Amino acid sequence: MIIVMQIGATEEQIQLVAETIRARGCEPLILPGQDRTAIGVPASLNNDQRLSLEAVLSAMDGVSKVTQTSHPYKLASREFHRTDSVVQVKNVVIGGGEFVVMGGPCSVESYEQFSLAAKIVKDSGATILRGGAFKPRTSPYSFQGLAEEGLKILKAVGDETGLVTISEVMSGDMVPLVSEYVDILQIGARSMQNFPLLIEAGKSGKPVFLKRGPAAQIDDFLLAAEYVLNQGNPHVILCERGIIPLDRTYTRNTLDLAAVPVLKEHTHLPVIVDPSHGTGVAKYVNPMAKAALVVGADGIMVEMHPDPKSALSDGSQALTPEQFTKMMTELRQLGEAIGRPLA
Amino acid sequence: MIIVMQIGATEEQIQLVAETIRARGCEPLILPGQDRTAIGVPASLNNDQRLSLEAVLSAMDGVSKVTQTSHPYKLASREFHRTDSVVQVKNVVIGGGEFVVMGGPCSVESYEQFSLAAKIVKDSGATILRGGAFKPRTSPYSFQGLAEEGLKILKAVGDETGLVTISEVMSGDMVPLVSEYVDILQIGARSMQNFPLLIEAGKSGKPVFLKRGPAAQIDDFLLAAEYVLNQGNPHVILCERGIIPLDRTYTRNTLDLAAVPVLKEHTHLPVIVDPSHGTGVAKYVNPMAKAALVVGADGIMVEMHPDPKSALSDGSQALTPEQFTKMMTELRQLGEAIGRPLA
Amino acid sequence: MIIVMQIGATEEQIQLVAETIRARGCEPLILPGQDRTAIGVPASLNNDQRLSLEAVLSAMDGVSKVTQTSHPYKLASREFHRTDSVVQVKNVVIGGGEFVVMGGPCSVESYEQFSLAAKIVKDSGATILRGGAFKPRTSPYSFQGLAEEGLKILKAVGDETGLVTISEVMSGDMVPLVSEYVDILQIGARSMQNFPLLIEAGKSGKPVFLKRGPAAQIDDFLLAAEYVLNQGNPHVILCERGIIPLDRTYTRNTLDLAAVPVLKEHTHLPVIVDPSHGTGVAKYVNPMAKAALVVGADGIMVEMHPDPKSALSDGSQALTPEQFTKMMTELRQLGEAIGRPLA
Amino acid sequence: MIIVMQIGATEEQIQLVAETIRARGCEPLILPGQDRTAIGVPASLNNDQRLSLEAVLSAMDGVSKVTQTSHPYKLASREFHRTDSVVQVKNVVIGGGEFVVMGGPCSVESYEQFSLAAKIVKDSGATILRGGAFKPRTSPYSFQGLAEEGLKILKAVGDETGLVTISEVMSGDMVPLVSEYVDILQIGARSMQNFPLLIEAGKSGKPVFLKRGPAAQIDDFLLAAEYVLNQGNPHVILCERGIIPLDRTYTRNTLDLAAVPVLKEHTHLPVIVDPSHGTGVAKYVNPMAKAALVVGADGIMVEMHPDPKSALSDGSQALTPEQFTKMMTELRQLGEAIGRPLA
Repeated sequence: MIIVMQIGATEEQIQLVAETIRARGCEPLILPGQDRTAIGVPASLNNDQRLSLEAVLSAMDGVSKVTQTSHPYKLASREFHRTDSVVQVKNVVIGGGEFVVMGGPCSVESYEQFSLAAKIVKDSGATILRGGAFKPRTSPYSFQGLAEEGLKILKAVGDETGLVTISEVMSGDMVPLVSEYVDILQIGARSMQNFPLLIEAGKSGKPVFLKRGPAAQIDDFLLAAEYVLNQGNPHVILCERGIIPLDRTYTRNTLDLAAVPVLKEHTHLPVIVDPSHGTGVAKYVNPMAKAALVVGADGIMVEMHPDPKSALSDGSQALTPEQFTKMMTELRQLGEAIGRPLA
Repeated sequence: MIIVMQIGATEEQIQLVAETIRARGCEPLILPGQDRTAIGVPASLNNDQRLSLEAVLSAMDGVSKVTQTSHPYKLASREFHRTDSVVQVKNVVIGGGEFVVMGGPCSVESYEQFSLAAKIVKDSGATILRGGAFKPRTSPYSFQGLAEEGLKILKAVGDETGLVTISEVMSGDMVPLVSEYVDILQIGARSMQNFPLLIEAGKSGKPVFLKRGPAAQIDDFLLAAEYVLNQGNPHVILCERGIIPLDRTYTRNTLDLAAVPVLKEHTHLPVIVDPSHGTGVAKYVNPMAKAALVVGADGIMVEMHPDPKSALSDGSQALTPEQFTKMMTELRQLGEAIGRPLA
Repeated sequence: MIIVMQIGATEEQIQLVAETIRARGCEPLILPGQDRTAIGVPASLNNDQRLSLEAVLSAMDGVSKVTQTSHPYKLASREFHRTDSVVQVKNVVIGGGEFVVMGGPCSVESYEQFSLAAKIVKDSGATILRGGAFKPRTSPYSFQGLAEEGLKILKAVGDETGLVTISEVMSGDMVPLVSEYVDILQIGARSMQNFPLLIEAGKSGKPVFLKRGPAAQIDDFLLAAEYVLNQGNPHVILCERGIIPLDRTYTRNTLDLAAVPVLKEHTHLPVIVDPSHGTGVAKYVNPMAKAALVVGADGIMVEMHPDPKSALSDGSQALTPEQFTKMMTELRQLGEAIGRPLA
Repeated sequence: MIIVMQIGATEEQIQLVAETIRARGCEPLILPGQDRTAIGVPASLNNDQRLSLEAVLSAMDGVSKVTQTSHPYKLASREFHRTDSVVQVKNVVIGGGEFVVMGGPCSVESYEQFSLAAKIVKDSGATILRGGAFKPRTSPYSFQGLAEEGLKILKAVGDETGLVTISEVMSGDMVPLVSEYVDILQIGARSMQNFPLLIEAGKSGKPVFLKRGPAAQIDDFLLAAEYVLNQGNPHVILCERGIIPLDRTYTRNTLDLAAVPVLKEHTHLPVIVDPSHGTGVAKYVNPMAKAALVVGADGIMVEMHPDPKSALSDGSQALTPEQFTKMMTELRQLGEAIGRPLA
């Protein structure tokens, strides 16, 4: 931590800052400058101590600015874990170099709809099957999902097809139930800072697919992952799914693709891109899926519905089976061309 | 709902849209224009039907844009409930014309700290006492609150002082526990779209203090309130607490004060402003609290700590007792001058 | 400037950074920490040297982060100019403690419209008359203003009423022309970083009213002011006019009122608030104008049109004469109550 | 245009709206709904009339919402110009299917620096040479460019190498001067709404390279293009260069890659991506350049400096010659694999 004093800060104010730091058991390094003084705090405090000290120092007279020099996350950081983490779920390896595709409808609507979707996913060569049973909906009047009935369908279809399954869990107390039925627990964008849920997902030991909140900065995202990791669960997969847009006219979110190389640099966790929510518009999914591949993502999650026009949720962003299959073919060709084969 | 067709949309495409609307039991109104056709859908669908139809139509060939003409919220809307809602908690009336002040520390840290804070709150003339027992913290390494122990202190101090109490609940399964100890359930900004929590808070029948999420649009905020109202619980209080900032250099959030008259126009629910989180900086709290009063808010929530420099959380935005008392005096004078007395 | 090295940065990388700093004539201060090293650069470089050095160091191997410890602006900074600057234009003093109101229509449309507006402004007790002659419009098909004809009307009406006048100038080469006719040069939000214009406005020596760009951070805003000040023109007035909104449904911009105390702390220049553009909606102007007064602004700029429904531009945010007069009356009462009389 | 009335709007209010529309020479279509009335306005007004009418209607009693059903731009719209526009400059074709690379340093610093850069650009197979002579800089203390001296170097090096040249012009009065020396006029992001500049660039008839403003919505961007087109100059090239970021910690802007397919759908103009400003970080340029290619951009603009560590501006985002050449090789391979050869 570096404390920069105001121009004209008195010697007394500087000494008071120094003593406040010493009271926490650190020896401050005082750097007099031409028109202001800076004070360094060695990195021997834990995170909580640092943040608490920062708050105290920020409020002291004569202090202009306090800057943290460490990243606030540790377990998620590549600085302490140089090699890529790999999350293996049954026979699917995420983060191991191959490009993984997760496909399926927004919601599980019925056994017929979902098994048809699964067949298309499997035939196209994708390996993970998505489908929502508990749906977080902005309006209480929108379709809320089939709940446990949906999970049962999900499990049955997963077993029949051999596809790995993923579905969203919306609260900590539901983690045991959802864990019984699905292979990967999804934590949605609106739940990224649902801390009781993150802790329970961590405790479960199940693979956790964590979506970035629409207004979350990268550090906040990695700290959310840290909540799961900190429970002893290393099986965390990150997902960029679009941030709040500057312009809501043509897309629902702004897909932040540069977040992929940023995350790859700062964390060892696998990174997936969701171009369906990232744009909110079916016709933009294919090009953005390809972009995800070339910028180095470990895979994509894409919504596909056997009949988008009859979908009970998010129909405007779901691919048709034909569009999904076409995208898979093009991704396979592109992956081969650049040495990133599809899983 | 209005569907605007693309220029050059074919008659066939227009008829297909019309039939899709008829299939939902509505008679479309077709408006041919100079270079494109618009199609109106009468407002006889419920919200879920409308949103589902919108998704379907958006994806149809020849459609340029689908616009909803109704607000998506009903119970929260002033269009259906013209008079101001008032939430009474013990002897404190929120939304009845008087300006209500909620004060206290970010976290309950100990009986000593909290009862000292409560005494200052009470002596200054404020009527509601805040204090966090379960703390949502961005980092797992930050102080997480005293949990039930904190609630016990909160209740004891509330009983001793006669102040109404408010504290945050972070998940649906904790609603019964927190309800036992506090008068008003606070739902934090990061939980604004924690739908299981909203539903449980609604079922509890307790007064619910709902903070706007940092990236929430007004309609999303009112739909979150709708989740609570929809459970038959009319005791909802809204809180503007700052939205994600353009500039993080000098404030933590951007306090959106115009949201107060916007909300007052579109909903009948009481609106509180939180200038502490809204700015994140103690010295800006007093002017923004006054601004909240003059723009028509029903009250404020302000963080005050007996000794901010030793606070375990959010020390940089907490007022000192002296600052809090000074703010109360100035608010009282201002309120008298403009005919908005403090509660 | 503080350079924080990566964990595991080699001694060689640290020495290379130190040498790069020495090559610019500064002696680096090396602070070894527990798991990473920080390096301080004394504040003896000018701004350009600092920014150039920052870019170079940021790109060096082993460097994690470079933090500037000085504000990038000097002439605008309160650190070097402790007392409030006052801009006097004829008999009107801006920044001297009184609350100044600038009123008038978005555009000068005709002598009749404008002299009628001026009469209402004057009768209400406001002292500065606004009106656009050159209009920056998002669409080339919108009304672009009366150009020099508008300036002539503006000057004539200003002379007749004795009101101080202000109007926008859109390019550097127009500064001499506009300066002939008006008392204060307005630089619009979209021109905040039109550097040739800022330089010419600086050279003119005329009072400059500089609006914050809708996406401008505070430092960028003050650096734009610095361009004017740097030409030897100290007569700069800042204006907060709303930043890009999170939600465009109910307001056109988000009025960032906390920017007023932030600016007042960091610069000595007067600060005006424009609640008309800040909200874009006539009915929200009055409450936000009052809020501007209580948070410490030096005045407001408000759009008023004799007949908003016939306005050629921005009719939806203009007050009617009755609304304007009512606002003035209420501001006068509020100003007296809090010791901030209207100019 | 569609006007949605409030619930409970009176018959009188509805008739007043209808009359206001009729007074502009249009026949309103009144659509009574279950709980509110909508009113359609046929698309026979020009843009200015529509926007003026919208403002008037928005402010009328009983009106809930006014929605425009037409795009505000015409000349830029694909609805009126179905085939892709191609801009040919000497032997380089932009928008014709091949992927065009524009490379070179942020600033022209000297003949030596610039001719060395040009040689690397040419040897790598890129066809357009960029370099700034007039630099828009946030701080008045930063390097402002070599001005006309820089243009002379640019022209000399362009002539020697046969590369097409592009450089920024910052104000309308400088258009003739810059036009003498360069092949393509660049209008920078901060000048996107410098309307006098857009008009002069339009009048010049030169190819215009228009960068999207960092806070510009798509419609505003296309309306800025419309200013140029409207002067009879069809040679407009659009450039996505990053929008204001949610998170400034790791990138300088957020590159909005989905804007490429959005623009390609709604306009016939060529679209270029600038991953250098779009991320602000050299190491992210290569992956984002590839992403630009796969999402369908017509080319990229990339900053490369013979020695980034000595650059007078933007050193942290400039590629080294080795990085630039490597990027070109990889883009060529990728382009061949997907049928989009480099120009």
